[in-house]
Amino acid sequence: MDDEQQRPARPPDSLALPRFCGVATFMRLPQASEATGLDVAVLGLPSDNGSPYRTGARFGPKAIRDASVMLRPVNPYRGNVDVFSALHVADLGDAAVVPGYMPPTLLQMEAAVRRVTDAGACPLLLGGDHGVSIAALRAVAGRHRQPLALVHFDAHSDTWDAYFGGERHSAGTPFRRAVEESLVDPQRSLQLGLRGSLFSPDDVEQSRRLGYEVLSTDEMLAETPPTLADRIARRTGGAPVYLSFDLDVVDPASAPGVQTPEAGGPSAREMLAILRNLHGIDLAGADVVECNPLFDGPGAVTALLGATVAAEILALKAVSR
Amino acid sequence: MDDEQQRPARPPDSLALPRFCGVATFMRLPQASEATGLDVAVLGLPSDNGSPYRTGARFGPKAIRDASVMLRPVNPYRGNVDVFSALHVADLGDAAVVPGYMPPTLLQMEAAVRRVTDAGACPLLLGGDHGVSIAALRAVAGRHRQPLALVHFDAHSDTWDAYFGGERHSAGTPFRRAVEESLVDPQRSLQLGLRGSLFSPDDVEQSRRLGYEVLSTDEMLAETPPTLADRIARRTGGAPVYLSFDLDVVDPASAPGVQTPEAGGPSAREMLAILRNLHGIDLAGADVVECNPLFDGPGAVTALLGATVAAEILALKAVSR
Amino acid sequence: MDDEQQRPARPPDSLALPRFCGVATFMRLPQASEATGLDVAVLGLPSDNGSPYRTGARFGPKAIRDASVMLRPVNPYRGNVDVFSALHVADLGDAAVVPGYMPPTLLQMEAAVRRVTDAGACPLLLGGDHGVSIAALRAVAGRHRQPLALVHFDAHSDTWDAYFGGERHSAGTPFRRAVEESLVDPQRSLQLGLRGSLFSPDDVEQSRRLGYEVLSTDEMLAETPPTLADRIARRTGGAPVYLSFDLDVVDPASAPGVQTPEAGGPSAREMLAILRNLHGIDLAGADVVECNPLFDGPGAVTALLGATVAAEILALKAVSR
Amino acid sequence: MDDEQQRPARPPDSLALPRFCGVATFMRLPQASEATGLDVAVLGLPSDNGSPYRTGARFGPKAIRDASVMLRPVNPYRGNVDVFSALHVADLGDAAVVPGYMPPTLLQMEAAVRRVTDAGACPLLLGGDHGVSIAALRAVAGRHRQPLALVHFDAHSDTWDAYFGGERHSAGTPFRRAVEESLVDPQRSLQLGLRGSLFSPDDVEQSRRLGYEVLSTDEMLAETPPTLADRIARRTGGAPVYLSFDLDVVDPASAPGVQTPEAGGPSAREMLAILRNLHGIDLAGADVVECNPLFDGPGAVTALLGATVAAEILALKAVSR
Amino acid sequence: MDDEQQRPARPPDSLALPRFCGVATFMRLPQASEATGLDVAVLGLPSDNGSPYRTGARFGPKAIRDASVMLRPVNPYRGNVDVFSALHVADLGDAAVVPGYMPPTLLQMEAAVRRVTDAGACPLLLGGDHGVSIAALRAVAGRHRQPLALVHFDAHSDTWDAYFGGERHSAGTPFRRAVEESLVDPQRSLQLGLRGSLFSPDDVEQSRRLGYEVLSTDEMLAETPPTLADRIARRTGGAPVYLSFDLDVVDPASAPGVQTPEAGGPSAREMLAILRNLHGIDLAGADVVECNPLFDGPGAVTALLGATVAAEILALKAVSR
Amino acid sequence: MDDEQQRPARPPDSLALPRFCGVATFMRLPQASEATGLDVAVLGLPSDNGSPYRTGARFGPKAIRDASVMLRPVNPYRGNVDVFSALHVADLGDAAVVPGYMPPTLLQMEAAVRRVTDAGACPLLLGGDHGVSIAALRAVAGRHRQPLALVHFDAHSDTWDAYFGGERHSAGTPFRRAVEESLVDPQRSLQLGLRGSLFSPDDVEQSRRLGYEVLSTDEMLAETPPTLADRIARRTGGAPVYLSFDLDVVDPASAPGVQTPEAGGPSAREMLAILRNLHGIDLAGADVVECNPLFDGPGAVTALLGATVAAEILALKAVSR
Repeated sequence: MDDEQQRPARPPDSLALPRFCGVATFMRLPQASEATGLDVAVLGLPSDNGSPYRTGARFGPKAIRDASVMLRPVNPYRGNVDVFSALHVADLGDAAVVPGYMPPTLLQMEAAVRRVTDAGACPLLLGGDHGVSIAALRAVAGRHRQPLALVHFDAHSDTWDAYFGGERHSAGTPFRRAVEESLVDPQRSLQLGLRGSLFSPDDVEQSRRLGYEVLSTDEMLAETPPTLADRIARRTGGAPVYLSFDLDVVDPASAPGVQTPEAGGPSAREMLAILRNLHGIDLAGADVVECNPLFDGPGAVTALLGATVAAEILALKAVSR
Repeated sequence: MDDEQQRPARPPDSLALPRFCGVATFMRLPQASEATGLDVAVLGLPSDNGSPYRTGARFGPKAIRDASVMLRPVNPYRGNVDVFSALHVADLGDAAVVPGYMPPTLLQMEAAVRRVTDAGACPLLLGGDHGVSIAALRAVAGRHRQPLALVHFDAHSDTWDAYFGGERHSAGTPFRRAVEESLVDPQRSLQLGLRGSLFSPDDVEQSRRLGYEVLSTDEMLAETPPTLADRIARRTGGAPVYLSFDLDVVDPASAPGVQTPEAGGPSAREMLAILRNLHGIDLAGADVVECNPLFDGPGAVTALLGATVAAEILALKAVSR
Repeated sequence: MDDEQQRPARPPDSLALPRFCGVATFMRLPQASEATGLDVAVLGLPSDNGSPYRTGARFGPKAIRDASVMLRPVNPYRGNVDVFSALHVADLGDAAVVPGYMPPTLLQMEAAVRRVTDAGACPLLLGGDHGVSIAALRAVAGRHRQPLALVHFDAHSDTWDAYFGGERHSAGTPFRRAVEESLVDPQRSLQLGLRGSLFSPDDVEQSRRLGYEVLSTDEMLAETPPTLADRIARRTGGAPVYLSFDLDVVDPASAPGVQTPEAGGPSAREMLAILRNLHGIDLAGADVVECNPLFDGPGAVTALLGATVAAEILALKAVSR
Repeated sequence: MDDEQQRPARPPDSLALPRFCGVATFMRLPQASEATGLDVAVLGLPSDNGSPYRTGARFGPKAIRDASVMLRPVNPYRGNVDVFSALHVADLGDAAVVPGYMPPTLLQMEAAVRRVTDAGACPLLLGGDHGVSIAALRAVAGRHRQPLALVHFDAHSDTWDAYFGGERHSAGTPFRRAVEESLVDPQRSLQLGLRGSLFSPDDVEQSRRLGYEVLSTDEMLAETPPTLADRIARRTGGAPVYLSFDLDVVDPASAPGVQTPEAGGPSAREMLAILRNLHGIDLAGADVVECNPLFDGPGAVTALLGATVAAEILALKAVSR
Repeated sequence: MDDEQQRPARPPDSLALPRFCGVATFMRLPQASEATGLDVAVLGLPSDNGSPYRTGARFGPKAIRDASVMLRPVNPYRGNVDVFSALHVADLGDAAVVPGYMPPTLLQMEAAVRRVTDAGACPLLLGGDHGVSIAALRAVAGRHRQPLALVHFDAHSDTWDAYFGGERHSAGTPFRRAVEESLVDPQRSLQLGLRGSLFSPDDVEQSRRLGYEVLSTDEMLAETPPTLADRIARRTGGAPVYLSFDLDVVDPASAPGVQTPEAGGPSAREMLAILRNLHGIDLAGADVVECNPLFDGPGAVTALLGATVAAEILALKAVSR
Repeated sequence: MDDEQQRPARPPDSLALPRFCGVATFMRLPQASEATGLDVAVLGLPSDNGSPYRTGARFGPKAIRDASVMLRPVNPYRGNVDVFSALHVADLGDAAVVPGYMPPTLLQMEAAVRRVTDAGACPLLLGGDHGVSIAALRAVAGRHRQPLALVHFDAHSDTWDAYFGGERHSAGTPFRRAVEESLVDPQRSLQLGLRGSLFSPDDVEQSRRLGYEVLSTDEMLAETPPTLADRIARRTGGAPVYLSFDLDVVDPASAPGVQTPEAGGPSAREMLAILRNLHGIDLAGADVVECNPLFDGPGAVTALLGATVAAEILALKAVSR
């Protein structure tokens, strides 16, 4: 990376070198082995150990990278910010994981994210199933030495206590664990987009009892994107924010390639409008999870949406510096 | 079934036994060979004899069952009703059919539905193409000894007279036949969601001449879900209702796996909002038809939507008792 | 064609002959080798020489034809106009192309469109990637001996100057070339639906500098379909209109099978409403481009949408005569 | 067709006009509405009314046509015969059928084949499931006024008596019916390629009791192609031959897109070698059945094999004149 | 099950009830919750915790069941044995597993197999990845109180020591563990079908050092099926045999839907011939593993082959009683 | 690359780091921007400008890389050679191309290959369609300053003169051009595996007239792999060899994802046996072409075969040093 890191590294010009040429990194960014000197480091967390149903999210980071070559560096929804002029960003590849063994996988993923945060960079993480978030939160909260504000978009609360005879880490548990471990401050946190059938009448209440503000899909869409963004900014109140984006928050028409699709969500356009209005957020880390290309169609719309969401998060960071 | 039928049978806990384990029944319900003691019996009608174009709906019941394992028993849109506490429900498997021979197929399907209605249970039927509805209507109307009120969601009216040299039973004819046979009372019935190009200028008028109230997709969506639900409740006026849901009423983005997709329909979210607002309906029977997994993608969004619609119908029944 | 052309040729009755029978032409229209006597000639331009990313649009005309057999001749959004009573239409098959060689391909496509316009018929062209439009515009503008008004629906402006070391013809350049060659009058032209990330801050401005009126997706949807249609009618001001419809203007949920999908577009229903409200347009030619079945799912929703858009264009022409 | 029929009609040169251009007919042959003047008429029989399991063969003729554009007119396995110089061939499109109604479908298909045989042409039929063969045999045997010699390649004997409560016509019954109706002379007929599990120990014996010579897959492959061809020539003994080719005779690796695949069959290469060695056959008619593109992969290898088999049958006819 | 178990339970007649009707069990067998009274119990082990690469074998048992409905009860390769007259067989559904947690999963699978062996039935196990075999071997060897003879068909030896930082249980380790735990007697055991590139020159030698007889694919196919069967019978020498069949032993053309396909294997026909010649084997248990429908095509040829292999194992058992 | 190039670079250990982790290079090799110090450089030539039919081979290099992560470094068919101990190999990414413009694409590809040969490395090229070979041959022959011996595996001769009105470069022409330009010495060259229908009786003869030795698929398989290898060694006679491998030489069952599949080819096992027996070849360059993932199934067997063939070529080079 050496002197490329003196000035922001840029993707090749897709009007000069076709997008299908060469090895696909996120948005065709340079690869790097360390995060030193970066503002944001893209890192894959290819674990599906936490998937109780449709497995395959281990191939999610690759799918998002492959789709992301279609994206361009300037974001018109943020004042035409040229993201890679504003930020030093590189693709660090993937954390190592141990398929079939959640405990060592969590340790390895946490260590990989710590290498990013220890270098002072903001991690932009590509899942993997939602079980990766607890590892990320441990690293990011550890760096900031304070509980984080969580902004969590998802059709499900992921605050269940345990699965399958007591296992405490899966795609359905990270945001209960995060409160128990004081990694997030639920009073500064929101869960947005919950919907669909429940295991028990208590499912939503359990999140509220933990302290989260919870908005169902209907409640989230009852606000305009600007007022919702204001509400999020007020709730997070200047604390370092971890943004977790589960692709299943969007309707299955726009994101068929997820583990547990939930019919009746917002359209991609509605969801992107919310992200593009976010402001007043001090982003400490973010993940885009549950992209599973094995259930996506040949058009790869889920992966493209995942890449687009990640690019919007980069743009949010770019204008917040 | 024996004493399980004393108390409502429940699916296994998906937090204890993974959803991919075991043979898939509708929402992981117990199987039963008879409907005795049940409030609702789920029954597949795997016929595509009525399909003039894309065949394969014979695999629809299996596809809906496979997708339905993702659903959970409590419905937050109906006051957190615990559906399987409120209702005794079991999966009766599929009616026998005779591929390629519509007349005996109609008889066999009618007989299978009669076994449900004779036991006093409400049939929740999984198609199969829309040609199965006439068999179901004969059984349900026969049980109630009166014409039924029909609430029919569909992109097409299915009130044509005959296909292909005079055959009077296909996916395009059941709701003309039903009026001719006095199985439904069109004055208490509605067709909702019609759209798209027509065979002749008369296509919509033919339904109105039969007596149906007809709302196009645009007209249906011009109302709010609550006002539309009121209108439906008024029209059906307390008569026993047969609800027929053709998945092609929804936009192909949300339901690609149907026989005759029609671009420009409501989103899954808009359609589910309508179903979740229905009230004042005395449900005598229902079907969810035209799920064709051969044209669905790997994400199986059509089958998931079909399962979700069926679950919403169960919840409507649960709160109507 | 001979005396069939005395009266409008009609598709076979799909209630008599199943849609899957026989060779698929557009809407099951008769084939013709010449456009003489036709009002509208359907012609495929199966070139993907202009595709910088996802290739395969050479199979687009076939895919649209295959899907179009589901459409019926009467359009209820245009006063139940019976399109093939109002217009003589036939399917002329495809222009010859030279895969891998853009320059001779452009000449061959232009010649094929000229055979249509020379016969006095309006060409309805099925792409092929957007690179085919420049060939079509040369033929149509040549016939009318004046610059055309362009109504261009697209997620991208396609007004870049050159690709890949200076090549001036690709899917990303036709609407700059068209201005340079005085084939379109940008002061009477609009580009509608632009969105997504940009190569440079200048991307949208370059279209405006060329003289086009440009509406982003958000701006397009901020108007109602009738007011937008009025605006288009005013802008085009009675000049002969070329309508170019890139399927990627619609959200990838409704059109996954395109070259460069852009998350966050209008739904199929929103887009069709705009088309169905268009009026006051003197249609000289039209294309529906970027249908790529290799990236469409088994439900072929992109191809069906392409066929539906083409049918709406026919209906617009039918009521404008 | 007029004077084209004076000289053999030829496909366009695929070195001049790309294969993806234009409407796909079988091997890009001219279309015709009548068989007058033809040596061989290609006709689709798009019925899957006879399919007890995987439906979709109604799309088989289209799939075979689409794949057949890859084939070229000269056959090097028959002395470089230029097939379309030797034979007048055209594509007559498809017979009409009545989906879901086997009895009228059989009548319509028989009538369509009779129009070919009445014109003195040899029908080359594209299925459709194997239930179409009985209709074809009625027409061809009727024309020849004698029982035909049957050469039947298939993993299954298709000599069961009845399905599903007594229906006597399905994909599993034609070759029992054909003996009962004296359409084939079993003493001059062979069934080749049978294999796999049986309904009862009697399954193979039932064919032998009807009079057929039966060779299992193992027995068929124990001979060399030339000795097998001699055996077939001896058995058929100069009688007019009907060749029926069920694609499931080939291993599912080479033909996944069939109704009832049977693991453990010959490779495509082994099977084609047998066909290419056939000689001494007075071909009166032939079918290639059970191509089902809904179960084929994106490479369409089943359809390509079906097209190749049909082309080999044409070459056999070409050298037998 | 009660008195059905007095006489062998049989599948429904597929000539009477179509195969797509009802819930799919293995070969349409009755379901049972206990193995009491059974000769063979079919049990799914839906774990992919052991998959280092392509995950998704958790859906393997369902895929094999779905495909197995195409199979019939009489096996012509074993003297037309009517398998379900000779053997009491039922489908016990699936063992519970804990996705992402190999240790408890192994315990739960072992317990489930023990319930079969404790009842005196022979387990026929459907994987799941190859990591399930160690759990099965523990149960079966425990029941027999002696090391088992292993007959192992696979492209890979699966005798590596550890994966990913020391984890000792995965799809790549069971047959080293089995020797270490004295569950198999390698001197009576064979590994057949190994091929492809190696991690180190030692890869094959490590199996031989453990005591296994090892035949590469080339060596296996250099023998005729009968002589190979004799060799296997001699090697196993009358000891109770555990047969483990990894579908990747077959060429990817016949089994694309596996975790680690290895180009250049035997055809399905070659492999089935070997199985159909096996004799002199006292079968104590068997598994068919690595069926992964997420990588299979729409024709599901891998699942069909898996079902066929399982049926051949049943036939071997039926004639060995 | 710096000091990594002092010792052979090696892929990560797939028993330590899962294969799905990180950016996929060929066999997980290090990336390099220059070929200096390498024995073999892997380079993608992602052009499908030469594809007259199924386009999409531009995605071939990516597909082969993705599949190649399943391969391991030691080759048991070449005396357990540890390929990356014997050879310095790296992945140089892809040449730039100009989609839709063959002439500049050929220049750019030739320049990219020249950078490899100028550095003294042997290029191992991943196509792209067969049109890339002429660019590669120009570079490799230029380096060696003599005509090369060609060993060409293909179902088609690719010695046609021109396509589509005179264009002289496409997937069907490189091996005529190569003779005309004296890049290959046909007297030392072979074409192996030709089969299938022909454009004209002259198709095979045209290759022989150019001087090539031509073996059809049947002729190639009539020899044993060792005698065929001897024949190839004799023919090439010590001249520097260019090996061109078109994946369509293999049967479509093993390679469905190619441009022009030809039914009836050798199995993957037969083909690999031939490659594994090659000897006495002084390899100057090689390509593996026509991998088209858009027509491959989810199991990606074509891409895996392409990767395996490339790995066998590396092993041939490794033992020839």
